[in-house]
Amino acid sequence: MATIRSCVRKMTGYVPGGSAKDPRTIKLNQNENRYPPSPQVAEAIQSAMMQLNRYPDSASLSLRRAAAEMYGVTVEEVMATNGSDEMLLLFFRCCCSPGDEAVGFYPGYTYYATLAAMNDVRYRLIELTDEFRLPKRLNPGDAKLVFLANPHAPTGTLFPEGDVRRLIESIPDGLVVIDEAYADFSGATVIPLLRDYPNLAVVRTFSKGYALAGLRVGLGFARKEILEQFEKVRDFYNLDRLAQAGAEAALRDREWLRKTTAKVIASRERTAEGIARLGFKVYASASNFIFFRSSGDVEAERIFASLLRRNIMVRHFRDRKVSDCLRVSVGTDDDMDAFLDGLARAKEEAD
Amino acid sequence: MATIRSCVRKMTGYVPGGSAKDPRTIKLNQNENRYPPSPQVAEAIQSAMMQLNRYPDSASLSLRRAAAEMYGVTVEEVMATNGSDEMLLLFFRCCCSPGDEAVGFYPGYTYYATLAAMNDVRYRLIELTDEFRLPKRLNPGDAKLVFLANPHAPTGTLFPEGDVRRLIESIPDGLVVIDEAYADFSGATVIPLLRDYPNLAVVRTFSKGYALAGLRVGLGFARKEILEQFEKVRDFYNLDRLAQAGAEAALRDREWLRKTTAKVIASRERTAEGIARLGFKVYASASNFIFFRSSGDVEAERIFASLLRRNIMVRHFRDRKVSDCLRVSVGTDDDMDAFLDGLARAKEEAD
Repeated sequence: MATIRSCVRKMTGYVPGGSAKDPRTIKLNQNENRYPPSPQVAEAIQSAMMQLNRYPDSASLSLRRAAAEMYGVTVEEVMATNGSDEMLLLFFRCCCSPGDEAVGFYPGYTYYATLAAMNDVRYRLIELTDEFRLPKRLNPGDAKLVFLANPHAPTGTLFPEGDVRRLIESIPDGLVVIDEAYADFSGATVIPLLRDYPNLAVVRTFSKGYALAGLRVGLGFARKEILEQFEKVRDFYNLDRLAQAGAEAALRDREWLRKTTAKVIASRERTAEGIARLGFKVYASASNFIFFRSSGDVEAERIFASLLRRNIMVRHFRDRKVSDCLRVSVGTDDDMDAFLDGLARAKEEAD
Repeated sequence: MATIRSCVRKMTGYVPGGSAKDPRTIKLNQNENRYPPSPQVAEAIQSAMMQLNRYPDSASLSLRRAAAEMYGVTVEEVMATNGSDEMLLLFFRCCCSPGDEAVGFYPGYTYYATLAAMNDVRYRLIELTDEFRLPKRLNPGDAKLVFLANPHAPTGTLFPEGDVRRLIESIPDGLVVIDEAYADFSGATVIPLLRDYPNLAVVRTFSKGYALAGLRVGLGFARKEILEQFEKVRDFYNLDRLAQAGAEAALRDREWLRKTTAKVIASRERTAEGIARLGFKVYASASNFIFFRSSGDVEAERIFASLLRRNIMVRHFRDRKVSDCLRVSVGTDDDMDAFLDGLARAKEEAD
């Protein structure tokens, strides 16, 4: 049989929150948007369908122009990728040789570690404080890459700009990747810091705020000197015609984004209060999900299972320090009423 | 600034046939299909658009089931990727460490070399014979990967199954990748040889026969033991909902594929005769393009330029051994009439 690299043979694949088989399931485990994307998206896709026999624009220029306008950068400072996942992979493919080191934070988004493993890159974790804040002492060593999700996942924490600056300054020879997957809900972004730091990169996705998880589009922001190297390495026709057209339409309909995120934020605050009222410790979220702590691992496991029996899917991470925590995505008000009701009953059962 | 791997800094990006700015251009330089995809595709995409806020099926199971049925393999023996380009990259990511060797043929599709360069893999070329046939002596050495497009690009040659067997048997410890991008036009495939050889992989695309270059979908076939390793490494949500639905619909409409490829093949044969009648040496093509030789580099260059002035784009490779050759994609009969007319005038001008 053909030889498979040992780093690939040794690794385990990524396991995300599961999908639902029953269409009545209230799916609050993958932080998808429960509101539909802008109606402009369907229109744009409809018209892009006319030319499916032709290769797409390899440069995704029209989409990148819209992004550059929106975020106040030049077209050369933004690239468009097949979901933010392709962008995250590109950091490893362009910056790391086997044996190099990348750094992340614990707890954190575990996909960075999967990407490191498949690229034969060592992945070292720096612990967040007990309140999920950036620690005083940062030791990024000689890491080629540092990953920080902001707002953080799975906690929802928003790190202030000063923290991000401190992190970037602590590793002048490595690239600091700020993953702003959930930034549409926080309103805060460090994209303007590209002016100050040549070793900063920012990643955005259309899967959360723009409600396009099914379309697979992401954006990467960095200095031109970095992205022109990345451009050589990315899949040449990485984004199909429909994805380019749909994402651009979503980006240009700012009013839709504003209205739907406002609804999510209002539901989030109401739900957070409801969870706290039931006696759980709720962490402040700047995202479209809520992370909360139960009285212990057993209770968390029981609540998870009890909600599932009621056809409500949330996320329970069985990892160190957070195995007593649960994460719930913020859906519609009806979703959240059903969730709060289910949580109250689950807690009664578990106690 | 952040560190970029030296293999990335040193490489040049891939340069495909250009796109056309003028919509009246007769674009015969990228082997796109000039017939539209099956009408079922638009319908399937339309209905998949309803759930764009949800992540797609990460396993592309429904599409893979259709492909498994069509090609007589199990679901575990086929994977679906973001264009065949993602599949081609996966071979390097899964089978090669920096410094390893991959082998291709000359002349041949140059994207394999680009992929090798970005993965820090040495790429060695074996020369085809003057008639673009597989040479008697093959020396794949200790290559981890061997790439052969069949039908070949840019020549259109169909290598007989015996040649493919000989190649596979010459490299028992490496993986032989047969790129069947154009096989919908030849009718021949080596997918059934998976039964005989554990070191064979076959790649297909929806960009040519299925007229979906703009949708970015490819398929990879190999033994289950190989693909289960690849599955861990590919982008987790590599195919969006619309691409999965559209490709499956295209695959299931066999009658549409049969009718449109029959039209392309008829135009190809008629065009090949016309080119030969003008005094060019035409190579037998089992593909949707025709490769032909002029009297020299200068004539080839002049014909290319003259056609371009007439708004007809063909391909002229300025590489060793083929710099006197031109390649034209087979479009509609009207396209080919315009091309033959333009070619006759261009030849007069060039002579």
